[in-house]
Amino acid sequence: MIFGSDNMLGASQQVLDAIVRANVGLAASYGADDWCAQATARIADVFECPVEVFYVSTGTVANSLALSALVPPWGSVLCHHQAHIVNDESSAPELFSGGARLSPIVDASGKLGPAALAQALATAPHPPHNVVPRALSLTQATECGLVYTPAEVSALAKLAHDNDLYVHMDGARFANAVASLGCSPAESTWRAGVDVLCLGASKNGALMAEAIVFFDPALAEDFAFRVKRAGQMAAKGRLFGAQFCGWLDNDHWLDLARHANGKARELSAALAAVPGVEVVWPVDANEVFVTMPTALATRLRAAGGVFYDWHPSALPAGRVLGADDSFVRLVCGFGTESAQIDALLQAAA
Amino acid sequence: MIFGSDNMLGASQQVLDAIVRANVGLAASYGADDWCAQATARIADVFECPVEVFYVSTGTVANSLALSALVPPWGSVLCHHQAHIVNDESSAPELFSGGARLSPIVDASGKLGPAALAQALATAPHPPHNVVPRALSLTQATECGLVYTPAEVSALAKLAHDNDLYVHMDGARFANAVASLGCSPAESTWRAGVDVLCLGASKNGALMAEAIVFFDPALAEDFAFRVKRAGQMAAKGRLFGAQFCGWLDNDHWLDLARHANGKARELSAALAAVPGVEVVWPVDANEVFVTMPTALATRLRAAGGVFYDWHPSALPAGRVLGADDSFVRLVCGFGTESAQIDALLQAAA
Amino acid sequence: MIFGSDNMLGASQQVLDAIVRANVGLAASYGADDWCAQATARIADVFECPVEVFYVSTGTVANSLALSALVPPWGSVLCHHQAHIVNDESSAPELFSGGARLSPIVDASGKLGPAALAQALATAPHPPHNVVPRALSLTQATECGLVYTPAEVSALAKLAHDNDLYVHMDGARFANAVASLGCSPAESTWRAGVDVLCLGASKNGALMAEAIVFFDPALAEDFAFRVKRAGQMAAKGRLFGAQFCGWLDNDHWLDLARHANGKARELSAALAAVPGVEVVWPVDANEVFVTMPTALATRLRAAGGVFYDWHPSALPAGRVLGADDSFVRLVCGFGTESAQIDALLQAAA
Amino acid sequence: MIFGSDNMLGASQQVLDAIVRANVGLAASYGADDWCAQATARIADVFECPVEVFYVSTGTVANSLALSALVPPWGSVLCHHQAHIVNDESSAPELFSGGARLSPIVDASGKLGPAALAQALATAPHPPHNVVPRALSLTQATECGLVYTPAEVSALAKLAHDNDLYVHMDGARFANAVASLGCSPAESTWRAGVDVLCLGASKNGALMAEAIVFFDPALAEDFAFRVKRAGQMAAKGRLFGAQFCGWLDNDHWLDLARHANGKARELSAALAAVPGVEVVWPVDANEVFVTMPTALATRLRAAGGVFYDWHPSALPAGRVLGADDSFVRLVCGFGTESAQIDALLQAAA
Repeated sequence: MIFGSDNMLGASQQVLDAIVRANVGLAASYGADDWCAQATARIADVFECPVEVFYVSTGTVANSLALSALVPPWGSVLCHHQAHIVNDESSAPELFSGGARLSPIVDASGKLGPAALAQALATAPHPPHNVVPRALSLTQATECGLVYTPAEVSALAKLAHDNDLYVHMDGARFANAVASLGCSPAESTWRAGVDVLCLGASKNGALMAEAIVFFDPALAEDFAFRVKRAGQMAAKGRLFGAQFCGWLDNDHWLDLARHANGKARELSAALAAVPGVEVVWPVDANEVFVTMPTALATRLRAAGGVFYDWHPSALPAGRVLGADDSFVRLVCGFGTESAQIDALLQAAA
Repeated sequence: MIFGSDNMLGASQQVLDAIVRANVGLAASYGADDWCAQATARIADVFECPVEVFYVSTGTVANSLALSALVPPWGSVLCHHQAHIVNDESSAPELFSGGARLSPIVDASGKLGPAALAQALATAPHPPHNVVPRALSLTQATECGLVYTPAEVSALAKLAHDNDLYVHMDGARFANAVASLGCSPAESTWRAGVDVLCLGASKNGALMAEAIVFFDPALAEDFAFRVKRAGQMAAKGRLFGAQFCGWLDNDHWLDLARHANGKARELSAALAAVPGVEVVWPVDANEVFVTMPTALATRLRAAGGVFYDWHPSALPAGRVLGADDSFVRLVCGFGTESAQIDALLQAAA
Repeated sequence: MIFGSDNMLGASQQVLDAIVRANVGLAASYGADDWCAQATARIADVFECPVEVFYVSTGTVANSLALSALVPPWGSVLCHHQAHIVNDESSAPELFSGGARLSPIVDASGKLGPAALAQALATAPHPPHNVVPRALSLTQATECGLVYTPAEVSALAKLAHDNDLYVHMDGARFANAVASLGCSPAESTWRAGVDVLCLGASKNGALMAEAIVFFDPALAEDFAFRVKRAGQMAAKGRLFGAQFCGWLDNDHWLDLARHANGKARELSAALAAVPGVEVVWPVDANEVFVTMPTALATRLRAAGGVFYDWHPSALPAGRVLGADDSFVRLVCGFGTESAQIDALLQAAA
Repeated sequence: MIFGSDNMLGASQQVLDAIVRANVGLAASYGADDWCAQATARIADVFECPVEVFYVSTGTVANSLALSALVPPWGSVLCHHQAHIVNDESSAPELFSGGARLSPIVDASGKLGPAALAQALATAPHPPHNVVPRALSLTQATECGLVYTPAEVSALAKLAHDNDLYVHMDGARFANAVASLGCSPAESTWRAGVDVLCLGASKNGALMAEAIVFFDPALAEDFAFRVKRAGQMAAKGRLFGAQFCGWLDNDHWLDLARHANGKARELSAALAAVPGVEVVWPVDANEVFVTMPTALATRLRAAGGVFYDWHPSALPAGRVLGADDSFVRLVCGFGTESAQIDALLQAAA
């Protein structure tokens, strides 16, 4: 009955096996090992294009470093008002960018729409007095558990590029999005205009491994300096390389994501049938957002249920939380089993 | 014949086993798991005192973050001119400290002596015009492979504290130093005046695990913010906790270090017997620094020997490198075997 | 017909005379001169309390430096969504604070109200994952030309202090506010809970002089380092001291502000009578915000009128700008004469 | 008898007159005024080339901002170990550069020589592990009161450029150097390879005015953002423009510098004749460095003499200060009169 976060599981067996295999023998340090080389080659295969890839230990540092390559210290990053980079990464983006600014755009639809983006871009900045928007950051899947279609990414990216902004994608749950869309990784990224993808594996089967994937090598020119200076040039880089190899092999990453997504849909359907529970966002990926009587939430937790209260600001437009209601998030992972869902439902009964 | 660095090996079996064991099941994220709690308890045991511990992925970020808690952005850190923080960590110390300064002190004895430190402290700063020294950083074992005795640390720390400087220890090879000294971890750190220790496991048996150990909890007050903001609050912190548990269990860390140190002495003795080779620094820990004819170095490498040319600035006082000579470093690790040493010697013959 | 900004005039005669007088002879450098000492004594008199004062060259650096003393790099500053620190000071606040964040609060009433502030404070931060609000910044007079009463400041400051936030006041037009309120400088600042005031003289009679006034000396402890490090420890600090002496002498600063405020009211009344012109904010200080047919704005400019188009986001709640209308700001200064207003009105006729 | 610093005087009459004249009337703000435009045109004339010029309030911010345009945050600035940027500007260079590093080069000759620079450049950096030298900073006149000839600048600049370093000149006393050399401003700057000059007026006749002069416009591309973000985009920029106009008119700046240099030579000659006094550096510009019995220094100060004790590290190579001796600096300015020198000499008698 643990639905707290998809980061509460360890690594999948296939990823763990890769770590164990990679542990043997001597290897070049600082990412110059064969495992990293292989991982990068596989990422290029998966995305069907040449890529520059850098491996880091957390999503926070992946996003912050990637953005630091896109915006100068006097620039700003446009993003959805629920973006993880705004709400959950302290001021890491400011640290690594040398003091650039995040400019959240309110869009109560659970993702960023072209209208809201266009409005944010409508007022031309008055340089050098204002910060100047230089990047758009999209989260895929979004913090409300929604997924941008390739066409949606494309429309947003076009607007961004037309205004001299680069496009960054926070792909902490990119696997879940791709599994949900059924499209190719290329279609939902560079073919739709994404310049840099933070490809997260930690939430979906790895222990600690994130890849920053540059589709435009020019943007990566000085990036090794940024990685080193961030204290992210790991001595034994093979730990990262091995995890990505294990994760990508035989579409393992998508299998894991499909499992998590399926369980989330299952959980959502089951919860929707519980009196007093309302599912507030479509379940595109592996997260379920519901309102429920606070009394019920308390009961579920007493029975061992683990899930987080969520920010009311993440409710759909116009939705007001009742005084006796709670807004909560439940997340399914690659290891979530139907038995856990059944147990939760029983406790709710 | 690989003596390039002690970071070219993977994890020891005991550490790897701990990772595999810790991988099972659900655990609280962001370092709130049992493995981290156990690791911290063991570190407290090892150092015989209460400690505040934070786990991070690299030595660079460990040092930089620790120093950021000791000096304000207008402060400076005094250190030996060969210090890793000065020579090998890009400007990470500046990044994480918000722009504080490193002030290297030249001491050609291979470690920092009280005379050189006293001289550096003799000129009172003229605040706010100058940067103000606020921390002393010592590397244990030093970058020349020497070890500070507790008495030496104590003398330096007293000078530092008398001048309102905190004392930081870069312990990337702390295990090797303790194994060499035969003293207790406490004696060579807080009992000698060290305020914060960066306890490195990655070079000596772990895959990717460094601990920042505060002996003065007051200094750690806001440190969780620094860790988060550095992108180092790992979602699955158990990876760090497990490695430290495996590493510390049954003095495993000291066994590994003793092995490496012993092999380094063996290598040093063997090389000293080769005509034209001179060992330039005592082998206190697991590093061997020698000069040799460049022709010999070339021959050894052709035969498969791996070791790095080293900075002439790391030679002892007055030692000038001959035009046909090379100054090289050879490092032994927990996995170095005598057979490798023999092979190198044969190639040298 | 120049109503572009109150910074388009030079210094008042009294301020200029002080500069000329202070220019004579030798004086201690870096702010240790008699003029700075006298200026600080006068500021203490004006505010009826002990103060720590630092002089800098611009409002941007005054605000940014003051805030840097109040919030750590992982903290945030709450402010009105029209605040100058958000919209017109590039990312200087991020630079000087080491990467802290500005969190604008939308309040369409032209100033920040307690309800909006309370709502922003309602969601407790989840440290260390989120940035933590540590300061409230109020602009007096506001960017919409309104003035906070002492009671309003007091209510906001109480909310702030109750939540462990310091209170900063951007007083670029503080003189105009005090002249408008008719209260004492003390009443509208520290007696109402303001911890630090940026007292701007440049917009109201000085050439280049801003004072950072700490009412709580503990907050100023390391501030000289911040000033020096910002490149603001002027060699010939007497330039700042002299301007403040001239500006404060015999309530000159309030006379200048009263003049500017009076002309603004005069201008506002005159414009309100022009068909098609609507004054959108009460004229509490020296700024007039109006909507007018774009054709009229064009005609006025052709006749020599200088004033800026203003951000539609600064319109009152619910006010939508007509397609053929312009939203403009007109500012009166200490040198504005009725003749200029008459000329503008004639052009409008 | 005030020889403390050339910043203890106010503005020259001609500069003050320019300020008074420029104070009249309305002018565009933020440096878009006619006075700034004229000043920039004059600087272009003086240097016989197109220039991009930015005006700021102090030498510290001028140097720091200029360097920030030349080196990335992972780069370093090579400079003489006595450089003002290292010793007297706190960590402002780190602040404005986002954490780049200063790498002082010890050269006991009172200026940086090509041999010392070549040695510093001899060890190729090992990117991204090390900081990478990207700029050379020269001070003209140097902190020991010496002047680089155009040929010397040229030799150093060639070395720098050959190693992909830009050349910055800290010209806080550039006027004194040019007056001393008798060469053209162009010869000692861009024709010798200088890329950016910080042209200081504050120490030599202005009240508060420094110009950052880019000889390569490409380097200035984003510089307005840096100026704004540093809080240096002064609302009433005409204050800077006017001072430079007054300062440059009719070679006034060189007249002032020639006067100061002449008085320094006069003072030096007079002091050299005093028993026990030794002039330790040639007097190329307006600074005199001497050793004298501490008893004499005390006597001179008791009689009203003002001059600073200086850092022993600024003594010529091999010179050791006697236990009873003091090393002091005396500075002459545009207002220094022979009567003051005579008075000092009398006190010394």
